[in-house]
Amino acid sequence: MTDTPATRADALVAAIDRAGSPACVGLDPVLDRLPDEIGGVGETDRIESFCAGVIDAVADAVGIVKPQSACFERHGSAGFAVLERTIARAKAAGLLVVLDAKRGDIGTSSAHYAAAAAGMGADWVTVSPYLGASGIDPFLDAGLGVFVLVRTSNPDSEEIQAAPLAAGPSVSAHVASIVARAGAGHVGASGVSGVGAVVGATKSSTAGAELRAVMPDQPFLIPGVGAQGGTADDVRALARPNTAGGRAGVVVNASRSVLYPEREPGEDWRDAVARSARELAAQLRDALA
Amino acid sequence: MTDTPATRADALVAAIDRAGSPACVGLDPVLDRLPDEIGGVGETDRIESFCAGVIDAVADAVGIVKPQSACFERHGSAGFAVLERTIARAKAAGLLVVLDAKRGDIGTSSAHYAAAAAGMGADWVTVSPYLGASGIDPFLDAGLGVFVLVRTSNPDSEEIQAAPLAAGPSVSAHVASIVARAGAGHVGASGVSGVGAVVGATKSSTAGAELRAVMPDQPFLIPGVGAQGGTADDVRALARPNTAGGRAGVVVNASRSVLYPEREPGEDWRDAVARSARELAAQLRDALA
Repeated sequence: MTDTPATRADALVAAIDRAGSPACVGLDPVLDRLPDEIGGVGETDRIESFCAGVIDAVADAVGIVKPQSACFERHGSAGFAVLERTIARAKAAGLLVVLDAKRGDIGTSSAHYAAAAAGMGADWVTVSPYLGASGIDPFLDAGLGVFVLVRTSNPDSEEIQAAPLAAGPSVSAHVASIVARAGAGHVGASGVSGVGAVVGATKSSTAGAELRAVMPDQPFLIPGVGAQGGTADDVRALARPNTAGGRAGVVVNASRSVLYPEREPGEDWRDAVARSARELAAQLRDALA
Repeated sequence: MTDTPATRADALVAAIDRAGSPACVGLDPVLDRLPDEIGGVGETDRIESFCAGVIDAVADAVGIVKPQSACFERHGSAGFAVLERTIARAKAAGLLVVLDAKRGDIGTSSAHYAAAAAGMGADWVTVSPYLGASGIDPFLDAGLGVFVLVRTSNPDSEEIQAAPLAAGPSVSAHVASIVARAGAGHVGASGVSGVGAVVGATKSSTAGAELRAVMPDQPFLIPGVGAQGGTADDVRALARPNTAGGRAGVVVNASRSVLYPEREPGEDWRDAVARSARELAAQLRDALA
């Protein structure tokens, strides 16, 4: 069967239900934070070993991983090759892959980015909305699910995303309406759409409720839990009303808090990562109830 | 001397003055449009040969090239490696390189993207504003010039970029004010800032004049000339007032019309590309007067 945004939505729901948690582990490998035990002569060898160890450590606890393209690209084409192999390894471990690339360009260029993401085997990809719907559609045409940036977790995103419009509450609410429209034709059997939104957990619950009202079928990719301070209650407030499990439409990412945990004396780094992933998954389990 | 956004601005002005034209050739290699004569066994070999031929053909006529990252990334890590070598070849040919990557993320991830662009040897990079100034600053910290997306050339960008704000004319004018503020500390000896803006030539002259008023020191990267229909008069209307040459602060990109020209009978493809680049440069020369 050929993948479509709608089948990507159903696969996302299934991945969350399998894990019993909306937890997603961000793969943000940063050289100077890697455990000392990581071997490898070159920088990209070390990053690849680390990502492989993390994937193996978290695959039982969570259903989704989110590689941060920037962390791989900074090591050039060799880093890009590690990204390709990391995605392949995650897929082989049964994980759903959200490529966090925040791409977005005019239609012809977005089509090239979409081919790149699909070619690497990503299931979903993060996309920037600034160029309008024509920059988003090519990713859907390539059969990918997309999470469109709507309300990001960084503090100074407010200046643009929260700016009030003459004809509506805010820029992000306007983008949300475009996302809802783009996603209407891509709803899976699960009731969840293949066009989702990035909505930070650190934003106010009022803003979150407004965005959920505009985007009832959209899965929300929620960064900002863990190191950035969001909680499971913040997540529940962003879920689709009257749903449970994967159909609640929330995917909650944590990166640094899982990848680089405090280790207990003598604890193997992979055991520490596995423990952090289990703790994250358990913390968020109630958000789906 | 270490590069800074301000020195990047002065180098941009100098590149335009050397060529006597603000013309920039976009490097958007697309497999099914390559000349039949292009050899090479693999797809990425063919793209690399094509880009090398284009660089050699246009280096006398223009001062700036703009590789479109998407066209390289669609061929995976091997394509990314071609991008690296293409940038190196352009630099060796004395060309200034604007990496068209439209990246933008939270600060820590933008810092990785900035390291990637600087590591490849790019002088300037295109950046998306949706995450706010903290997504832009890391590129400046890495010593790069940045062209921030303000008003893009695709028709449906209007829906977001032209949306009227409660407290100002439009989203793009608001972004323009953020760009002007970010660029204030990065003005070179030329009077031009290392923080510029992408402003499409296909937009109305009223919108262009408004954006120039908000961003008096910013260089404008102007796509949409050639295949997309903009003219030299459109460009002059976007120049900085009372300036000449590179200090006029306009960089005008054409991609398809230069890369894939109609060929005269028996004409070598590289000669056709060189001729198209010379015609573009000549057409735009008056825009600096």
